[in-house]
Amino acid sequence: MAKKSYRTVNGGVVAARGFRCAAASCGVKTRPGALDVGMIVSDAPAVAAAMFTTNRFQAASVVLNRERIKERVSQGIVVNAGNANACTGRRGMADARRMTALAAELTGVSEKAFLNASTGIIGRPMPMKKIEAGIRSAAEGLGSTAKHGDDFSKAIMTTDTVAKTVAVEFMAGKSRVRIGGSTKGAGMIAPNMATMLCFLTTDAAISKPMLRKALQETVRLTFNCITVDGDCSTNDTIAVLANGAAGNPKIARRDASWNAFRDALLYVTAQLARLIVLDGEGASRFVEVMVTGARTDEDAGLVARKIANSPLVKCAINGGDPNWGRIVCAAGYAGAVVKPERTRLWINGVKLFEGGMPTRVAPSRLAACMKPKEIFIHLDLGIGKGEKRIWTCDFSREYVAINADYHT
Amino acid sequence: MAKKSYRTVNGGVVAARGFRCAAASCGVKTRPGALDVGMIVSDAPAVAAAMFTTNRFQAASVVLNRERIKERVSQGIVVNAGNANACTGRRGMADARRMTALAAELTGVSEKAFLNASTGIIGRPMPMKKIEAGIRSAAEGLGSTAKHGDDFSKAIMTTDTVAKTVAVEFMAGKSRVRIGGSTKGAGMIAPNMATMLCFLTTDAAISKPMLRKALQETVRLTFNCITVDGDCSTNDTIAVLANGAAGNPKIARRDASWNAFRDALLYVTAQLARLIVLDGEGASRFVEVMVTGARTDEDAGLVARKIANSPLVKCAINGGDPNWGRIVCAAGYAGAVVKPERTRLWINGVKLFEGGMPTRVAPSRLAACMKPKEIFIHLDLGIGKGEKRIWTCDFSREYVAINADYHT
Repeated sequence: MAKKSYRTVNGGVVAARGFRCAAASCGVKTRPGALDVGMIVSDAPAVAAAMFTTNRFQAASVVLNRERIKERVSQGIVVNAGNANACTGRRGMADARRMTALAAELTGVSEKAFLNASTGIIGRPMPMKKIEAGIRSAAEGLGSTAKHGDDFSKAIMTTDTVAKTVAVEFMAGKSRVRIGGSTKGAGMIAPNMATMLCFLTTDAAISKPMLRKALQETVRLTFNCITVDGDCSTNDTIAVLANGAAGNPKIARRDASWNAFRDALLYVTAQLARLIVLDGEGASRFVEVMVTGARTDEDAGLVARKIANSPLVKCAINGGDPNWGRIVCAAGYAGAVVKPERTRLWINGVKLFEGGMPTRVAPSRLAACMKPKEIFIHLDLGIGKGEKRIWTCDFSREYVAINADYHT
Repeated sequence: MAKKSYRTVNGGVVAARGFRCAAASCGVKTRPGALDVGMIVSDAPAVAAAMFTTNRFQAASVVLNRERIKERVSQGIVVNAGNANACTGRRGMADARRMTALAAELTGVSEKAFLNASTGIIGRPMPMKKIEAGIRSAAEGLGSTAKHGDDFSKAIMTTDTVAKTVAVEFMAGKSRVRIGGSTKGAGMIAPNMATMLCFLTTDAAISKPMLRKALQETVRLTFNCITVDGDCSTNDTIAVLANGAAGNPKIARRDASWNAFRDALLYVTAQLARLIVLDGEGASRFVEVMVTGARTDEDAGLVARKIANSPLVKCAINGGDPNWGRIVCAAGYAGAVVKPERTRLWINGVKLFEGGMPTRVAPSRLAACMKPKEIFIHLDLGIGKGEKRIWTCDFSREYVAINADYHT
């Protein structure tokens, strides 16, 4: 990453100029008064980019957004939490359209310029009467204070324990540009909840193709590097709106402004992705798995994901056990080229494995390396130049409790 | 499977004629008096077949056995539990050889006719003084009573909670033939324990190539269909010795005797594989995942394994929740061709999902389908003829406890 050229600011999805947002409670979440409908609107037509789940089972909102994102301009996003509108058939598609039609009508925006997202229980018809009331209430409350941004963050939560939002400011030439975002995640498909949503706004003037490129590049390095339990949901959506209100010369190629924009977006998405991992269901530790020296980046990815998703490794980390055996074993069955005698492993800087055997480490250093709440696992395969970094969390009794005690 | 032509008998690995076995306690397992060395010897030279872990980190015994299994004849197996002799470098290889050399010397068998296996903690040098004493003690105690068979089963246990053994008898022409076996497994790489071992003996007269074929065919349908947590260890070994003592005309091609032999071996390996799953760490339920209608068998396998290894699915089963959403979601990101509208799902015979949506099932039937201790999940993808069956167990708080509280 280049020299840091941005600073954090408040406001989340309304930190950028020319955006308003709102949240409302419509009674889909069971806790009385819980915010469960959210809306973001740009004052002026904007360009949008988005990425979606690769799951073959796709929520109605994902199917709709894949069409809507092709439009030349976008101007708003309407979201609900508590019901994922997934596995809901034709009626679900009609409900998703109805949400955007109503939001568009109330805000004076073209229907096709509205995106839609849902998160919550899957396989249940949407309680549209409640949701329509929520959308009406949200439309009346649109604003751009920090409280508006915070409330929007709350409205998209499901099993999340904290609202997740971040925003930054940077200079693009002589123009002050902002990027802000809110995300929700917790467990992947937490108690039947459809997972990861992320909404980003920016007042940068940027072309639609460059916005898409920036989103793809940063998501590859951030959201696509996280895993809580390896599951991937029906509703995963990351969307960004850019309305040009900052007045910067439009970013349309890989120049200095694009670099600054991309760096700032990388910071925002990285922070939001880390917040999701830290709020993983039952998680007590943040874990970075870095694999280097692999034959290819793909091999590194196979090994890093196998380690990050191994229940045995995740349980060991939960218990504070520097269990090198489970880590090298996971590497050994990842399907990548691995040569035991060339493999080296460090946990938080302490070398635990080399030359096909564990190293001799004083018991006190061994215990100390697992003390921190952040665990950095570095496995070097000693074969090539392939690299991959994955962020995850540990596996706890609480994870099982949350996911076993929930009932469909 | 053809008409059942076998019946179960006692004796485990010494049910077949011409085999003796023994167990001894040498103090590698910490519990005083715990059996931790085992030995099987055929009175006459036998033929052997074996299959090993695909993990790139392979224990010394696996490296040695890969050579030994090429020998024309085999006659014995020597095993220890408590130390896996994995990630132990050159010294580990020398220790594995020493085990077979000593066992061979004491039993009057050629060293190269002895196979070796170890299971237990990885990365620690073998306490050879203790193990050699154990081998001497076992050699003195060889015999062929049911007690000998039971003791051998106990000697190979690690985190297993019950000894696992089964034997059958069937007719090959006019000859009475027996096949018996012992296995150990529990969690995959349970607290740093190297996993799955299975030893089979038979008095069938059978050619080495046909024995290998029978083992490969039955393991594909049994041991390769089980998963506890998706992890695969450094030491996994399945070996079979056939000494011809039954006096049947030698099985050398796919005739009626071969069919009877293969059916009996399939029963024995299936029973042993099921016993491993039922004894999975913290397991409270046996789960069969059957995927049909896939584009190919490979696609069916991807989907079945993704479902069987999904922590969310396994937690739901632990909690008795008929969570169709987690199952279809897991199918959706398995990387196979899946069409939501063609997908149908049954749990214990109750159809829960069809046409892209959950079915309407009375709450009482929904609850009832998760009552049994055996859960049969049947997912039909409605696309082709690919099929795969996987056996697994649920995920419990106890699983996390066992694997988090263990310390390296």
